[in-house]
Amino acid sequence: RMQNSRSKPCSCPSLKLREVASMYFTMVAAFLVILVVALQGSAPRESDFPYKVPLDPQGLLELSWNVSYPEQAVHFQLLIRQLQFGLLFGMSDRGEFENADLAVLWSDGHNSYFGDAWSDAKGQLHMDSQQDYQLLGARRAPEGLYLLFRRAFSTCDPKDYLIEDGTVHLIYGILEKPVSSLQAINISALHGGLQRVQLLKPNISIPELPSDMKTMEITAPDVVIPSQETTYWCYVAELPAGFPKHHIIMYEPVVTAGNEALVHHMEVFQCAAEFDSFPHYNGPCDSKMKPDRLNYCRHVLAAWAMGAQAFYYPEEAGLAFGGPGSSRYLRLEIHYHNPLVFKGRRDSSGIRLYYTATLRPYDAGIMELGLVYTPVMAIPPGEDNFILTGYCTDKCTQLALPAAGIRIFASQLHTHLAGRKVVTVLSRDGRERQVVNADGHYSPHFQEIRMLKEVVAVFPGDELITTCTYNTEDRSRATVGGFGILEEMCVNYVHYYPQTQLELCKSAVDPGYLRRYFNLVNRFNDEEICMCPQVSVPEQFYSIPWNTFNRDVLKSLYSFAPISVHCNKSSAVRFPGEWEKQPLPSITERLPEPVPRCPPASGPQPAAPEPLNLGQLRRD
Amino acid sequence: RMQNSRSKPCSCPSLKLREVASMYFTMVAAFLVILVVALQGSAPRESDFPYKVPLDPQGLLELSWNVSYPEQAVHFQLLIRQLQFGLLFGMSDRGEFENADLAVLWSDGHNSYFGDAWSDAKGQLHMDSQQDYQLLGARRAPEGLYLLFRRAFSTCDPKDYLIEDGTVHLIYGILEKPVSSLQAINISALHGGLQRVQLLKPNISIPELPSDMKTMEITAPDVVIPSQETTYWCYVAELPAGFPKHHIIMYEPVVTAGNEALVHHMEVFQCAAEFDSFPHYNGPCDSKMKPDRLNYCRHVLAAWAMGAQAFYYPEEAGLAFGGPGSSRYLRLEIHYHNPLVFKGRRDSSGIRLYYTATLRPYDAGIMELGLVYTPVMAIPPGEDNFILTGYCTDKCTQLALPAAGIRIFASQLHTHLAGRKVVTVLSRDGRERQVVNADGHYSPHFQEIRMLKEVVAVFPGDELITTCTYNTEDRSRATVGGFGILEEMCVNYVHYYPQTQLELCKSAVDPGYLRRYFNLVNRFNDEEICMCPQVSVPEQFYSIPWNTFNRDVLKSLYSFAPISVHCNKSSAVRFPGEWEKQPLPSITERLPEPVPRCPPASGPQPAAPEPLNLGQLRRD
Repeated sequence: RMQNSRSKPCSCPSLKLREVASMYFTMVAAFLVILVVALQGSAPRESDFPYKVPLDPQGLLELSWNVSYPEQAVHFQLLIRQLQFGLLFGMSDRGEFENADLAVLWSDGHNSYFGDAWSDAKGQLHMDSQQDYQLLGARRAPEGLYLLFRRAFSTCDPKDYLIEDGTVHLIYGILEKPVSSLQAINISALHGGLQRVQLLKPNISIPELPSDMKTMEITAPDVVIPSQETTYWCYVAELPAGFPKHHIIMYEPVVTAGNEALVHHMEVFQCAAEFDSFPHYNGPCDSKMKPDRLNYCRHVLAAWAMGAQAFYYPEEAGLAFGGPGSSRYLRLEIHYHNPLVFKGRRDSSGIRLYYTATLRPYDAGIMELGLVYTPVMAIPPGEDNFILTGYCTDKCTQLALPAAGIRIFASQLHTHLAGRKVVTVLSRDGRERQVVNADGHYSPHFQEIRMLKEVVAVFPGDELITTCTYNTEDRSRATVGGFGILEEMCVNYVHYYPQTQLELCKSAVDPGYLRRYFNLVNRFNDEEICMCPQVSVPEQFYSIPWNTFNRDVLKSLYSFAPISVHCNKSSAVRFPGEWEKQPLPSITERLPEPVPRCPPASGPQPAAPEPLNLGQLRRD
Repeated sequence: RMQNSRSKPCSCPSLKLREVASMYFTMVAAFLVILVVALQGSAPRESDFPYKVPLDPQGLLELSWNVSYPEQAVHFQLLIRQLQFGLLFGMSDRGEFENADLAVLWSDGHNSYFGDAWSDAKGQLHMDSQQDYQLLGARRAPEGLYLLFRRAFSTCDPKDYLIEDGTVHLIYGILEKPVSSLQAINISALHGGLQRVQLLKPNISIPELPSDMKTMEITAPDVVIPSQETTYWCYVAELPAGFPKHHIIMYEPVVTAGNEALVHHMEVFQCAAEFDSFPHYNGPCDSKMKPDRLNYCRHVLAAWAMGAQAFYYPEEAGLAFGGPGSSRYLRLEIHYHNPLVFKGRRDSSGIRLYYTATLRPYDAGIMELGLVYTPVMAIPPGEDNFILTGYCTDKCTQLALPAAGIRIFASQLHTHLAGRKVVTVLSRDGRERQVVNADGHYSPHFQEIRMLKEVVAVFPGDELITTCTYNTEDRSRATVGGFGILEEMCVNYVHYYPQTQLELCKSAVDPGYLRRYFNLVNRFNDEEICMCPQVSVPEQFYSIPWNTFNRDVLKSLYSFAPISVHCNKSSAVRFPGEWEKQPLPSITERLPEPVPRCPPASGPQPAAPEPLNLGQLRRD
């Protein structure tokens, strides 16, 4: 590591000074003519804030927002149903209250104040030197107080959160007592929580819907929500006998009124066609009573998560269901999140499918990108950002995609509990061209199908590279790839059209090279470790004495060793060809890091050349 | 690698637009009332610009400057002896004209303009959106035109060079024809060059000098500078017989008038005391006629490089010379840099030593930090920034330093041709505390003894960690550690007091672990490589088939394997103790990266909370 300078770290005004300055501002503000910020006339229309999510499990705080891409800003409308002495609202990397970027409304009992603040690593609040949560208005209504404010995506204030595509962890806290100043707020004593949303919804025009469109609701049959924090509820529905092939062209959530804060996410799966019938189960998914056969209901038809809106297929495509070769059985899965352990709440939420018999030109398909579910891909324990990458190679797309290519229009990222970031990049001729989907604040607890801002065209010979970042700081042994909840996955389910035979385009390190790694660890380290070939790969990973060398060499292996490519028609059937010991795709040109747009810094002079009078320049 | 966003890279105004805007400014400027920027009255005193260096080998451009640490700015005075149609002056990473930060004076034949510009990766000039070279004045004098301008260390304009401690590569170019605009300047056709300087000279108060101070000039005896680009001249001088012990307390360069641009650097070495006499040689250092014994004249007494000023010892210390146990023979080495191949220039440059018989409280000492000169530390070929680190461990300082510690007051960094950066950091209890010396633009062609801005106190138990960054992109085989010019070193000669027995505190990787690495490379790679133990370490490094895996694993080895520590009284005698297979010092806390001070960005609102009138907050 290189130090650039031998100077001491840049001095910041001490905390004391900051506090004094901020108190001064507060006092000045109190003597100012009180600014009445109030909207005149009627309330803003609901369409002004098309996205809505409850922040707390009781639904006392309700956030609506809109996104302006031309302005590169989000407008928020926050409804506070029972305002006490103010509240905190903000964003942080993963929902923590430390190092958070906050808009704060507080009252000292006499006056109320609004300001942009930040919390340090210890959770202490500070006024921001640059006020980027801009208050636009406040309005009393029978249901509560509405606060309207605006925030640019990026502010270039290093204390501010950068609003990006993908998951944003919103945090809130309620002030139950008056406070003399912002600095006096004790975050640890607040009643607060977090809510995950995709803040930057894509700006997509809604395709025209056909006149013969029908709807079908797949909803829970008046379920009593269990009085426990987490429940996955399973319910099997059945299509009518002889239901012919249709295209699903849209779906939307149906959430029972009052349960908005409890219904966390819902998915509809189609069961496997190879079984004639499935039991009509209705109960918790983890119950001992749940029939095993329901494990064969895994083909996603629709998925919704809190904060998401209706999902529209592009007008050229629809998702086929019904007809021969397609199961009539559907499984609805609802994740109830009930942290306050409400009892006896009844729920009939679900998903409303909009479908048509007038088939669109293309069937939509779903393709799995990323890593094969195999223990050869493993993460050492104690890592804060270990990276694994899965490749869909040029050879596979060359073979499996039509010459006209496919169009990816939506994506669902998937890892298990250690996943922190996921990104898929499209590369062509060794040059990264486009991000297919990225989530730098990915949470395994918030897996939505997301419409892409821009449809991505993928052609034969393109490469799709999916990279996942994991955190295993709380684990004491290696985390291997696999199906178990404590094993890991790195998957991007991409939704595309026209449907092809390619269902799965993933990779894993060549097992022979992994054996060489185990041998190397055996020989390099002083300890006598039994990593005999007869021991399973997970056992070998579990027995490695993890140190920086064994960790670094595993990283080097994954970024060097050839791969085994799964270029499959279905999860068991490979396309013909040689798929073992394939070279890693080489990238010669990376996408540039996006540079956030900032207000231009005020330079000492304008950008014009300065004319001089020097007389005649040349001395002859 | 994680993409943070799926948005396209932030759009910048296209080059076209930039150019149009800049041309517009140029035109507006031409119609403005011509600004007469001229200093009234007499010329600035020389003491206003204490540092001076010729930029070009003919001395047509002469740069003087001063450094204001309170303002964090440098003031430049540039003397242009024969101005034609303008000139470029600026800074870049390593002296290249691409990606450079430039102040440009240009004339279209009628008017002259001054502006802050930058060159892109292709060398095309652009006006800077933020003007950070601020013109302060221009003045005609008999000797030429003086331009005065100012530049803040850091501007936070990403196109600007960040002025840091250590080497700065200055570049200049002369405009020999009028140009219609800044954009019309063709850099590749310019007559130009580079000059290395330490721009940020430390701000040190000069210690009081004793009344009995004497001087001695060690100068070349009217040498005819050879008409070739590079000459190292060697001249042996002799102290009078019976010369007793003195303290050198200061030295300064003596440069023959007119040769300022040719004398690149000079060093005075003391010869080894074990030989009674040395031949009085006077000739090129690489001549076949040079007596071998001169290789024993390596103890540095004084070193000067272009742009450096007088060197003062701290008032408590002096460098001992003379007296018993000290050789009477001194070797002066002068590096003449004569790229224009002037013929017949005579030179009597050298160094003037200021010394006193009234010995100061402490003898000053020189200690070598960094890497042992051994081939076990090697750099793969084709690397653009490969890092090697040498450790002076807590165990060694514990044993060798006095309880009151030592004070490091100066430092000379040293590598061979592949060196690009050098830094030494002081660590205590596993926490980095202070940068001893750092050069992020280090050049092996510019090795000065530099006074430290702040004296660094080192106590028993402290660790001194020296890190070098190398570039081997132009090499096709590994570069191993060693004495040869194509081998590498990583050394920091620190000057300190009081002198201790510790002359050398360096390290290298444990050779047993390196053998394991060779075995591992042998086994992991498919090729059959002969890296049998009877082959030398360099031969083994040369035979490695370099790929990312072998490279990464070597990095992992160097940052993991135990080290052999050289904690030596003289280069051959170790302090008693166990110095093999020592653990690498572990660093639990790094120094923060220095954050450059910038003009504050203009935020949308002041940092005061906004008072609101919401009526009574609490609804009872």
